[in-house]
Amino acid sequence: MAHLSLREAVALYLCRGIGVSTILALKQKIELSELFIFSQPALCQLGLSDHIAQQLVTIDWRKVDRILTQCLSSKIHIIHYFDSHYPESLKHICSPPWLLFCRGNSELLHQPQVAIVGSRSASRLGVDNAYDFAKQLGAANFVITSGMARGIDGAAHRGALDSVRGTIAVLGTGADVIYPKRHDELYWRIVEQGLIVSEFLPGTKPHGTNFPRRNRIISGLSLGVLLVEAEIKSGSLVTARYAIEQNKEVFAIPGSIRHSLSEGCHFLIKQGAKLTENVSDIIEEVSFLPENSLYIIESEKKQEACLVLQNLGYEVTDVDTLAQRTQWPVEQVLARLLDLELEDKVERVLNGYIKLARG
Amino acid sequence: MAHLSLREAVALYLCRGIGVSTILALKQKIELSELFIFSQPALCQLGLSDHIAQQLVTIDWRKVDRILTQCLSSKIHIIHYFDSHYPESLKHICSPPWLLFCRGNSELLHQPQVAIVGSRSASRLGVDNAYDFAKQLGAANFVITSGMARGIDGAAHRGALDSVRGTIAVLGTGADVIYPKRHDELYWRIVEQGLIVSEFLPGTKPHGTNFPRRNRIISGLSLGVLLVEAEIKSGSLVTARYAIEQNKEVFAIPGSIRHSLSEGCHFLIKQGAKLTENVSDIIEEVSFLPENSLYIIESEKKQEACLVLQNLGYEVTDVDTLAQRTQWPVEQVLARLLDLELEDKVERVLNGYIKLARG
Repeated sequence: MAHLSLREAVALYLCRGIGVSTILALKQKIELSELFIFSQPALCQLGLSDHIAQQLVTIDWRKVDRILTQCLSSKIHIIHYFDSHYPESLKHICSPPWLLFCRGNSELLHQPQVAIVGSRSASRLGVDNAYDFAKQLGAANFVITSGMARGIDGAAHRGALDSVRGTIAVLGTGADVIYPKRHDELYWRIVEQGLIVSEFLPGTKPHGTNFPRRNRIISGLSLGVLLVEAEIKSGSLVTARYAIEQNKEVFAIPGSIRHSLSEGCHFLIKQGAKLTENVSDIIEEVSFLPENSLYIIESEKKQEACLVLQNLGYEVTDVDTLAQRTQWPVEQVLARLLDLELEDKVERVLNGYIKLARG
Repeated sequence: MAHLSLREAVALYLCRGIGVSTILALKQKIELSELFIFSQPALCQLGLSDHIAQQLVTIDWRKVDRILTQCLSSKIHIIHYFDSHYPESLKHICSPPWLLFCRGNSELLHQPQVAIVGSRSASRLGVDNAYDFAKQLGAANFVITSGMARGIDGAAHRGALDSVRGTIAVLGTGADVIYPKRHDELYWRIVEQGLIVSEFLPGTKPHGTNFPRRNRIISGLSLGVLLVEAEIKSGSLVTARYAIEQNKEVFAIPGSIRHSLSEGCHFLIKQGAKLTENVSDIIEEVSFLPENSLYIIESEKKQEACLVLQNLGYEVTDVDTLAQRTQWPVEQVLARLLDLELEDKVERVLNGYIKLARG
C-alpha cells in the first residue's frame, strides 16, 4: 500500500474504533487515502459508524504533525501495517497493532526471536536463570524479546545485551517513556544496542491496562515464549496464552513445588508447555516448523469471546466473577477480554470490565 | 491350584531356571505335583531341559523343610503364585515372582497402593516431600509401597506409618534381613504396622543385583509410582520404566533446574509423566482406570530384549556400551537386561553383563 503516507497512517491511528481489521476491510473497497477526502455520508455508506466517520472528517492534522515532529526529534521510527518493515509475524496475530513506534535498530524485528517473560518480583534464582538463558540463546543467534519490566524481563534484556544478538523491549508506555525508572540505564543500552517498540503514542505514561495488551506483541514477534517464574494469576500467563493461541512454542522452567513463583510454570507444563532445563530444550523446538505446537483455532477463540461478552453486563463485572461464570482459568478470561477490548467491545474500568454499547 | 502344597511350591522355587511362565506352561499339561514323581526322561519329554529335570529329581527336601521352619519361626508367611492371597496386580507384570515372603500384615497387598521412590542421597527438601506426600496419601486411603532404602524410600515409609493406612516395604534382601542397618527401628515399625515383602529366601544378604529387580514388584503392586528426587542414571528410573511398561501412572515432582537430583524427575515429565505439585495431582489420576496411561506393548519389549541380547556377547559388556550400541536411554537398557536376567538369558557380573549359553 504505497499510497498511504506516514501522516495519513498516524491520522488513522488517532481515530478511535478503527483497527487493522477495519482498515483491511476498507482497503477492499477504496484507496485508503480517499478516507480523508470523503464526506461524512460517503464514509457512512462504506459501512463506517457515525462516530468513526465524524472523527475522519475532523482529523486534527496539527496533532498529527506534532506527533511526527516529536518522533523525529526522539529518533522514533514509525512503522505502519503496510510498511515493508512491518514484521510478517505480527500480521498473523489477532488484533495486530496498526502502528509500531520504534527506537533503535528496527532490523531486529525481522530476526528470529525468543521471548522471555516472568514475574516482576522474581527470586534471585529466577533472575539468574532469565539472564543465563537470554545470554545463551543470544549466543545461539536468537534475539531476546521481553517487556522491560522489573525482575525477569530486565534480567533477560541484560543477558541478551551481554551476548551478541541484541534484544527487543516491547513497552506498555510510549517508546520514549522509561518505566520503571530504575531501568533508565537499561533503556538507553537497549536503544543503543537493541530496539524499543511500542504501539502507544510517544509520551504515553504507564497505565495498567496497556501492559497486558502489549504481551500479544511480545509473543507475536517470537518463535516461542519462555516463562521463567510466574504466579498463577499473572500477566506472564496472559503472554503464554497468547503464545499458545498464536501457535507459538511455550517453554517453562520448573522449580520447587514449595515456591509460589513456580506455580505458573508448573501450570503451563501440565497444559502442554515444554519443561525446560536448558537452552537446547528451546533450540530443538523453535528450529522446527510450528505445526506441532499447541493451538486454539481462531473460530474457537471467537466463540470464547462471545461467551465472555454474554457473561458481561453493562454493570462492572470483575475477572474472578467472569472466570466463575465461564468456568475457565483466569488468564483465558483475561485474554478474551483483551481481544474484546481491542475490538472496542468492552472497556476496562476500575475493578473490572463493562460491555460497550455498539456505536 | 489347590493341589500344590507349600512344601512343593518352595521346592519349585529352589530349582534354578523355573519361573512362573514355565510353571504356567507345565500346568497346561500335568498336575504340578506330578513334577516330583516323574522320572528325569519323563520330565524332559515335557519339554524341560536336562538341567532342570536333573534338579527336579534331586530336590533337597531337607533344605525345603529348613526354609519352612525358618519362616515359621520368623513369622514369615509364604504366598505362592496360585495362592488366593497372591495379589492379582502382580500376575499382570512381566516375570511375576513365584513366591512372596511376607512379614507383617499381608492383607495390605490387596489394598490400593501408590509407590513412592527416589534417590538414596536425597536432599532435605526431597525427604520432606516424600514424607508429606506419603502421609497425605495415607490420609486419602492409599497404602504407600517403597523399597526401604535410605533417603526417599525411608521417608515415604515413615510418612505412611505416621498416617492411617500402613505401608509395604519390598526388600532386595531376605524378608528377615535389615538393610540398611540404620533402618532397624523403621523395619520393626513396618513389621508391626505394615508389611515386609521379599521374593528372596530368608537370610539373603544385600547383593547389588537384587535391588533393581525388586523394583518391578514395587511398581507392579501399585496403581502409580511417584518419583520424588532422582538422578538420571538411577534405580528409581528403572522403577519408573517398569511402571510405564506395566501401564501404571507415573508422577514426578519438579525442582530447580540447577539441582542434579531433579534431573530424573524432569526427564520423566518430558517423557509424559505427570508433573506433580500435590497429592490431588495423584489422586485424580489413580482414581481412573489405567487406559489413559503410557505403555509399551509386550511384543515391543520382547523385540527390545532381543536387540539387547544381540548387542551382548559372551565377553563382559557394560551398560553404557549397550546404551551406545542400542541408542537407548540407560534405564531402558537396564530394564531389558533385568528381563533377560529373570529369564536366565544373561548374567550380571562385576562391571557388566554376559550372555549365558542355553542349558
